[in-house]
Amino acid sequence: MLEAIKQAKAEKSDIIVFSELCTCGYPPRDFLEFDDFIKLGEKAIKQLAKAAKGIAVVVGSPTRNPVIEGKDLYNSAYFLADGKVQHITHKALLPTYDIFDEYRYFEPANEFNIVEYKGKRIALTVCEDIWNVGNENPMYTVCPLDELMPQKPDFVLNLSASPFSYDHAADRIHVLKANVKRYGLPMFYVNHCGAQTEVIFDGGSIVVSPKGKVFDELPYFQEMVRTYDLDEVISGKPTKENAHYGEQPKEKIELIHDALLTGLRDYFGKLGLKKAILGLSGGIDSAVVAVLAQRALGAENVRVLLMPSQFSSDHSINDARELAQNINIQYDIIHIEEMYDQFLDALKPHFAGTSFNITEENIQARTRGLLLMAMSNKFGHILLNTSNKSEAAVGYGTLYGDMAGGLSVIGDLYKMEVYALAEYMNKDGEVIPQNIITKPPSAELRPDQKDSDSLPPYEQLDEVLYQYIEKQQGPKEIIKMGFDKKLVARVLRLVNISEFKRYQTAPMLRVSNKAFGMGRRMPIVGKYLS
Amino acid sequence: MLEAIKQAKAEKSDIIVFSELCTCGYPPRDFLEFDDFIKLGEKAIKQLAKAAKGIAVVVGSPTRNPVIEGKDLYNSAYFLADGKVQHITHKALLPTYDIFDEYRYFEPANEFNIVEYKGKRIALTVCEDIWNVGNENPMYTVCPLDELMPQKPDFVLNLSASPFSYDHAADRIHVLKANVKRYGLPMFYVNHCGAQTEVIFDGGSIVVSPKGKVFDELPYFQEMVRTYDLDEVISGKPTKENAHYGEQPKEKIELIHDALLTGLRDYFGKLGLKKAILGLSGGIDSAVVAVLAQRALGAENVRVLLMPSQFSSDHSINDARELAQNINIQYDIIHIEEMYDQFLDALKPHFAGTSFNITEENIQARTRGLLLMAMSNKFGHILLNTSNKSEAAVGYGTLYGDMAGGLSVIGDLYKMEVYALAEYMNKDGEVIPQNIITKPPSAELRPDQKDSDSLPPYEQLDEVLYQYIEKQQGPKEIIKMGFDKKLVARVLRLVNISEFKRYQTAPMLRVSNKAFGMGRRMPIVGKYLS
Repeated sequence: MLEAIKQAKAEKSDIIVFSELCTCGYPPRDFLEFDDFIKLGEKAIKQLAKAAKGIAVVVGSPTRNPVIEGKDLYNSAYFLADGKVQHITHKALLPTYDIFDEYRYFEPANEFNIVEYKGKRIALTVCEDIWNVGNENPMYTVCPLDELMPQKPDFVLNLSASPFSYDHAADRIHVLKANVKRYGLPMFYVNHCGAQTEVIFDGGSIVVSPKGKVFDELPYFQEMVRTYDLDEVISGKPTKENAHYGEQPKEKIELIHDALLTGLRDYFGKLGLKKAILGLSGGIDSAVVAVLAQRALGAENVRVLLMPSQFSSDHSINDARELAQNINIQYDIIHIEEMYDQFLDALKPHFAGTSFNITEENIQARTRGLLLMAMSNKFGHILLNTSNKSEAAVGYGTLYGDMAGGLSVIGDLYKMEVYALAEYMNKDGEVIPQNIITKPPSAELRPDQKDSDSLPPYEQLDEVLYQYIEKQQGPKEIIKMGFDKKLVARVLRLVNISEFKRYQTAPMLRVSNKAFGMGRRMPIVGKYLS
Repeated sequence: MLEAIKQAKAEKSDIIVFSELCTCGYPPRDFLEFDDFIKLGEKAIKQLAKAAKGIAVVVGSPTRNPVIEGKDLYNSAYFLADGKVQHITHKALLPTYDIFDEYRYFEPANEFNIVEYKGKRIALTVCEDIWNVGNENPMYTVCPLDELMPQKPDFVLNLSASPFSYDHAADRIHVLKANVKRYGLPMFYVNHCGAQTEVIFDGGSIVVSPKGKVFDELPYFQEMVRTYDLDEVISGKPTKENAHYGEQPKEKIELIHDALLTGLRDYFGKLGLKKAILGLSGGIDSAVVAVLAQRALGAENVRVLLMPSQFSSDHSINDARELAQNINIQYDIIHIEEMYDQFLDALKPHFAGTSFNITEENIQARTRGLLLMAMSNKFGHILLNTSNKSEAAVGYGTLYGDMAGGLSVIGDLYKMEVYALAEYMNKDGEVIPQNIITKPPSAELRPDQKDSDSLPPYEQLDEVLYQYIEKQQGPKEIIKMGFDKKLVARVLRLVNISEFKRYQTAPMLRVSNKAFGMGRRMPIVGKYLS
């Protein structure tokens, strides 16, 4: 942030604006319950205030609620200038749904004041504060800009940490335009960029001119400082030479692709890690994860294991090898038959009289998980999980086996989206061998197994899952849409009885508006639809 | 509930009171986001209303907020009589901290009305509503009973789902007495009994006479219907023959013991499961879990595996065998050397030039995890996890190895508490062999290994962890208490960098006021103290 302030000063900016809770990261979660942590935020503000000379610095940080009643903290925006704190605005609308827990920590603002600087009157708002335009959002009863308008602000600053989902951009632009339509003011929406564990932020900061046109939208998934001239924004016409202002492209699969790269890069980068490992089965899921890892971390930081068993088909090994060669990553082959047989031997006296079933399938998956973790432990490569959302939903995976890993890369992508992503990756030439995309999906844990032996066709499964998970539709509503009654009952039941498995999976990079993990909190013990 | 109503009618009660959100279970979590789920609650209320003839039925259930603004639901108490809904009271104080997410779903009440029945004026309240006596709770700004008092109620009913922790009972009685002191009314506090996944409810319903004496406290961890005469409660003197009214005993370790049995019983019972398996190492943790499982589920439903390696000491096997025989559970021995060696063989070409380290230790732990899961898959025994809170805190455990399992039984007990629980289990004669309690703890994953090689003594470790986890004290505060600076920095760092492991562990039965899991939400990617 100090570097960015330097850059902004060099560009002769009057104000530099950072994102919501920028001093401590978003979401800080229960770190906020530590007085020591809050003090570190206060210390950061002091440092930034010192740098706020010849420039005003606007930055999000937690502040303390001085009143005993209510929550201990506010989610605030500081206005720093002339070396000190000039103004603090608190957030009024506290998202407490999906991945958001803000009311767990923060008291909502109950007063609203603009801040004056260099003759301009500024309406300072924090994220959700602009999401109740004209009180049309059913979740809230207050509209902060309605409260601020009598003080006649000249423009609006909004500090956000608004997570990415592939359909969020449209909502965001709609809301910004609705604000500008209602208030007729230029708006500067400054959004957090980068990922924190599973939550990805696209940046995509937006400047809207008072006539409602998007004046500029910053490129997605890139940290940057860009300076705007207020008069230019008000006029709605960029005058700078070489200016390429306007909206960014927003194709779903391209956004997901770039978001996952950011999620991977920041998980590794922010934890001080470099190297990843995964099991390459010859199937589509691990192929897509391998390419994402190679693109995010570099081919030299990704290695894969091919771990065939007696149930693996030749094409699996060949396809996996071809992919590894295409993207130039290290691959090693470890045959698992002997380890698998050793387990069966050891269990033989205890398994007497039983026949091959899912137990033996899971032993294979767990043997592979063990080998991957051994390589991970020995060489420091973090194991990437390769499960997709369809599998994770219905519990079609082995805990501690193929469900192992430190980070689930495509756990928020339905199988059909994984296919679409694979096609997208091949757009400039074949990276993922075509055979991986076209062959019928199989776990290859018993002879001639196909996913379709156990699961409905993914085209149908994904649709039902989408209605249940993203749209919170119950069985009656989904059946009404034309899906088979038995299919719906079976799928919903599978989702609910697999909650115990998902409880133990790695964080999943979130790209939809309803991912498994913190944003979807389901009982494990519960009778509903199970 | 229909059975209980029948019983209450037989006892000629005028009113039967159930607990908070009793129709749907507590916590229902995101099931509440499904319209279909809310409809099922409404259906249940209709059924109960039909049964409310000749008796009034008071029961907690979600209701819809008819106003568009604000959250969609209320957390409500229904008063059912003469076959229909007579009154609905909404909860005003919505806990949104620790394991509680009520503001995620519910709108707080904004009006307060008593209900009249058979000439009595009843103040109906839901759980937290009585926890802001005289506005002394800093979390809230409203005091529902202050609002109700002008309507001159004769007594207070409180429907609760107040989770157990070993120190909760004292707070509860304190709060109830403070309410009675302020309002001078008899109070009937009806608490949920049983466990839902990790959250345990002790029941422990309490009747307080208007002079502030506890008239009766129901036995902990037992569902029951007990009838009280209002005049008797007001007089403060039980007149029934054989009445043993008064407070229940509240020894910490006994409470924990009984709570864990309830947690185990209900996890299995409510999921329709019967049988448990665990690995018995000869150490204290697995010993305590085995005894708990045997007591909760019955010896016939518990089996254990002893899985020695070349690093296991003779006493471990002997101690484990002795324990299994003491509690009469099935035990089997599977030596893991050959499987372990097979893995080392397979990895040899890849591990060339490296030496024995934590990787090889983890292979042993994961081989055991794999064997336990294989038995679990083949015979339907649920694997119980045996990690304690000290280990879970500092990451002294192997993911997918000893950290595997469907339910963590003692994951909320520090190591010293595990010892205390073992002693308590032996109070009526030796169940856990004394040698298990007295020998120095060891993971036995390399020659002559001791926990104390890697960790500070548990007496110190547990104290530092308690201050950091339960008391949210930062490093400076803990050092001020007299702990060594380096020790504190090391322990807190270990806790923070192990977040990724805990993210993937089974739900842990919660017995303290700050357990790992839903009640403690920490970033995995975060620089604080890591």
